[in-house]
Amino acid sequence: VRKVELELIVLGLGNVARRAARLIVELQDRVPFTCRAISVVTARHGHMQSDDGLDLRAVLQRVESGGRLGADAMGTVPMIADLCARRAMAVRERRLVCIETTVLNITDGEPAISHVRAALEGGAHVVSANKGPAAFAYSDLVAVAERRQRAFLFEGAVMDGIPVLNLVRETLPGVRIEGFRGVINSTTNHILTALETGETFDAALARMQAEGIAEADPSLDVDGWDAAAKTAVLMNALMGARVTPHDIDREGIGGVTPDEARAAVERGERLRLVASAGREGGRLQGRVRLERVAAADPLGSLTGQQNALLIRTDVLGEIGILQRDAGLTQTAYAIVADLTTIARRLGS
Amino acid sequence: VRKVELELIVLGLGNVARRAARLIVELQDRVPFTCRAISVVTARHGHMQSDDGLDLRAVLQRVESGGRLGADAMGTVPMIADLCARRAMAVRERRLVCIETTVLNITDGEPAISHVRAALEGGAHVVSANKGPAAFAYSDLVAVAERRQRAFLFEGAVMDGIPVLNLVRETLPGVRIEGFRGVINSTTNHILTALETGETFDAALARMQAEGIAEADPSLDVDGWDAAAKTAVLMNALMGARVTPHDIDREGIGGVTPDEARAAVERGERLRLVASAGREGGRLQGRVRLERVAAADPLGSLTGQQNALLIRTDVLGEIGILQRDAGLTQTAYAIVADLTTIARRLGS
Repeated sequence: VRKVELELIVLGLGNVARRAARLIVELQDRVPFTCRAISVVTARHGHMQSDDGLDLRAVLQRVESGGRLGADAMGTVPMIADLCARRAMAVRERRLVCIETTVLNITDGEPAISHVRAALEGGAHVVSANKGPAAFAYSDLVAVAERRQRAFLFEGAVMDGIPVLNLVRETLPGVRIEGFRGVINSTTNHILTALETGETFDAALARMQAEGIAEADPSLDVDGWDAAAKTAVLMNALMGARVTPHDIDREGIGGVTPDEARAAVERGERLRLVASAGREGGRLQGRVRLERVAAADPLGSLTGQQNALLIRTDVLGEIGILQRDAGLTQTAYAIVADLTTIARRLGS
Repeated sequence: VRKVELELIVLGLGNVARRAARLIVELQDRVPFTCRAISVVTARHGHMQSDDGLDLRAVLQRVESGGRLGADAMGTVPMIADLCARRAMAVRERRLVCIETTVLNITDGEPAISHVRAALEGGAHVVSANKGPAAFAYSDLVAVAERRQRAFLFEGAVMDGIPVLNLVRETLPGVRIEGFRGVINSTTNHILTALETGETFDAALARMQAEGIAEADPSLDVDGWDAAAKTAVLMNALMGARVTPHDIDREGIGGVTPDEARAAVERGERLRLVASAGREGGRLQGRVRLERVAAADPLGSLTGQQNALLIRTDVLGEIGILQRDAGLTQTAYAIVADLTTIARRLGS
């Protein structure tokens, strides 16, 4: 089988994008595409372009040793438009893909939304591991993607590379999603598990920051914003909602003490930050709530960084998908899976 | 989007096939195909053919009221070959599909294997809800399918319509399956759950037979053969094995007492019939074993007819898929999903 040759515009070169770049090389004999980065744009290391293709290995090494790639981009959106115009052949052949992994902005999802829109308008497919675009502007961006006949994929936005959006789209044809219930934020699940062992909140959080699991600014996780953004993505993409993270009825885990966590265990329960959605009085409502979950519940048996999503359907009843191991590779894999989806569509 | 018009050869018209026929009508506005049955062959009700398409509703009514469709088929395999030859246009356009739902023969998988081979050789795609062909002759049948460029799909063989084979094929590109562990036989799980409440083995089994969950001859379930056949299907399809159900290290649940089941619960465990596979000393080995599973294990929290499969992968670690509700509709849905896969490939 002849491989599809993708050209990449890489926006953001943090941990996820760098691991994805290496994973693509590791899995190159197993995936139906090859790729060539023609532009890399970073927030802290400047940007670099080459229509002949960048030496991505050298780029990664320079960024990881703290070096700079070049001057800052003078405006990412016009640059995307310019690149799309310049790579006319790749655009015509639908081989141009923009990989968006910039940081989630929980206020309004920008500038990632503008990046995605500019790329789609320019004729590039978009693969995003950033929750913002689908959480804040799903229906607008899907409309652009459909008009331009390009893919807008974001498997990594919800449960790392564990298939959730792909599961529904590819394997559940004709099935309607009526709601869901899940534990989809690893940091809070890890902290709640640590509290059950008597560790204090601050100690657990500090340990996770040291291990690179939690962010330096943990408020997105701890206050439930990350789970709310994922809830909005799932509602928009699977249930036809038009919500943003600010529409989710949200609480965090900030006030939980080891005593409370251990008391729940003694009652045969666990405290878990549960994301859910469903129809209430004819209206879709999403929630992120600290809940007491029975230990035998699939959400109750999760420990540490494990995630789970239980999807309520009309035809098949409830289906669950479990992530039993989590890490950077899992998140990076979502980008590989989305690139494969694009390559399969082009190759068929 | 224009729908693909499939022509169906229907082998077997038991509960699953009849529910599938109705489900296709119920979901007709949501699936990318229409279909027309040109032949129905049953074991007990004779057979019926019409190149113009049968009135499937009338066929179902006649079978369900105990009536006959016509004389017995004079030999199903030559009839399949004859039909394929006669429907040359549908074969050329790759629109002919054989739906195989005859009963599992645990001795050698026949005659279903011959049905599948004849249909593939004749140029029909095959959708099977019967475990036999993939459990006993996977590599042979896949070779025929590849040579004839036809689909051989059997999602319903393992976890009803809950995606397992589709999950790996469609959503986990580039990922290698190293092993699995699961509870994939509903009848035994139901009986073991009933034993925990003090019900006797015979009473639980009789109740399930009355409810239509267990077969009149329960030995396939109780002795672990159904789980062994599913284990063979998963090993062959996902791990490149060439095993049959007879190669699986198998035990059943025949000797379990309510006291043993309740003692396990008191220890914080559950007795479960666990199917598993993995590499042992360089060799793939499948097992079906009565195991003591921790209550917090995803396999331990399953009750009644719930199923779960934990898949061990190289890239993503362990992933689980849970079936929380089971029934005839779920099994029938597998056929809808497989027909959709065929229609999508034809439509793309």
